[in-house]
Amino acid sequence: MKLLRVGPAGAERPALLDEDGTLRDLSALVTDVDGALLGDAPALSRIRAAVGARILPALDPAGLRTGPPLARIGKIVGVGLNYRRLAAETRSVVPAEPVLFLKAADTVVGPDDPVLLPPGSEKTDWEIELGVVIAHRARRVETDEDALAAVGGYVLAHDVSEREFQFTRGGAWVKGKNYETFTPLGPWLVTPDELRDPQALRLRLWVNGDLKQDDSTADQIFPVAEVIRYVSTFMTLYPGDVILTGTPAGVAMSRPDPKPYLRAGDVVELEGTGLGRQRQELKDA
Amino acid sequence: MKLLRVGPAGAERPALLDEDGTLRDLSALVTDVDGALLGDAPALSRIRAAVGARILPALDPAGLRTGPPLARIGKIVGVGLNYRRLAAETRSVVPAEPVLFLKAADTVVGPDDPVLLPPGSEKTDWEIELGVVIAHRARRVETDEDALAAVGGYVLAHDVSEREFQFTRGGAWVKGKNYETFTPLGPWLVTPDELRDPQALRLRLWVNGDLKQDDSTADQIFPVAEVIRYVSTFMTLYPGDVILTGTPAGVAMSRPDPKPYLRAGDVVELEGTGLGRQRQELKDA
Repeated sequence: MKLLRVGPAGAERPALLDEDGTLRDLSALVTDVDGALLGDAPALSRIRAAVGARILPALDPAGLRTGPPLARIGKIVGVGLNYRRLAAETRSVVPAEPVLFLKAADTVVGPDDPVLLPPGSEKTDWEIELGVVIAHRARRVETDEDALAAVGGYVLAHDVSEREFQFTRGGAWVKGKNYETFTPLGPWLVTPDELRDPQALRLRLWVNGDLKQDDSTADQIFPVAEVIRYVSTFMTLYPGDVILTGTPAGVAMSRPDPKPYLRAGDVVELEGTGLGRQRQELKDA
Repeated sequence: MKLLRVGPAGAERPALLDEDGTLRDLSALVTDVDGALLGDAPALSRIRAAVGARILPALDPAGLRTGPPLARIGKIVGVGLNYRRLAAETRSVVPAEPVLFLKAADTVVGPDDPVLLPPGSEKTDWEIELGVVIAHRARRVETDEDALAAVGGYVLAHDVSEREFQFTRGGAWVKGKNYETFTPLGPWLVTPDELRDPQALRLRLWVNGDLKQDDSTADQIFPVAEVIRYVSTFMTLYPGDVILTGTPAGVAMSRPDPKPYLRAGDVVELEGTGLGRQRQELKDA
């Protein structure tokens, strides 16, 4: 299933994109896509039954904004340098274990909402990523099977990153990862039954129509199940948490000077197999 | 005012510690201490009026657990190496600008709740800190006056840190900062009218009765107002966000070998001027 939230920011309603591509209203079945629903098997069953019975009212998508698919996100754990070709192009040592950082949930916006350039930013970069949404508590998970059983769905993510703030201003990466609007998520959360192999997804990102990133999650150094196991030894994962599993090669910072960092007016588009599309315009904050 | 939440975990009620040291029930006035209240001047006025009129019912503190004073915490921004004597004892360069990291809100527990040692932990360390609770949105704040106007209150915090995971496992510090129970907060949130100078607070921490940290926030390299201004250039601060302003000298990691890291059964006590006391027993997870 593809679960969405549509409507004005802060007043989104739960929705579903069915197999025919019709948007369906879930308001009568659940109050929201996340929270209870992520760990709530009966709610999922009710939705599946309603889809099967073809009784969900259709929604007209014209002019309808798509919000992030989750209303209440817990923590966002990012994985740095998790693609072999990214490590190669940035001349980085392939990490022996996953590199982790945190992003604040308040940086999340919808897939087509504007992205703001921080004042003074000269090096705002793009990063398409596969996001993993946790549905069941994961605490010191030992097997890949148990790790994947904790997953409620997958989501396309844009981990916008200011490289000057991230690398040269001291401390952890948080300074470059947490400006308002720096985590577009969506359009939908797709359940694992529809996306069976998270290691075989093509991820593509364009800037002003030029293809910049085009790679497969098969290039991940630490695949999704291993990342979940690893993270769960350092922190407990709860329903509503999101893991951003790293970006593939093709970012601005690894290109020749002058590097093509994002500017106001630029348009970034992202697409992932089974994950849908995003489109953001960059604006000055 | 000193605002608290008391009761079983997940079912705390709002309370107030009055000037006579009597615990008062706020349930009839507000649903919780944080959220609306932090930005809600009328709610604060109602509480002040009720305190003045001496009409709040008393609560018997016997056997009553104290929870963290905030029910819904946004992001937690930590400041690393923010005390001169800590920089000296750890032989660190005094940072030219604040070193920032994030902690997940799900690590927060009450001031006297047990602290869990992560499996495999050999280097779990203590860090007493002054916590700053944000009550009003702070976005690119330019003056110290505006920075302090965003503060809803102060809180005693314990930023428990696993040094092996923090420093030698790759990536940002998040691996050592985010285990369950690693952020005891409380007992109360004290409003700025009662704690006028955040740079003149004595912070003390004991392990099994031995005084380990004893310093003043006067030793902070970047004082509270400057930290808020600085953070607000990289990320917007929202009501319910908490800034942990760094720990003073005296942590385990800067002591001679064998360093006295925490073990199961150890008892840590913390006290700060105007901030109250915490007491935690360390337990194996």
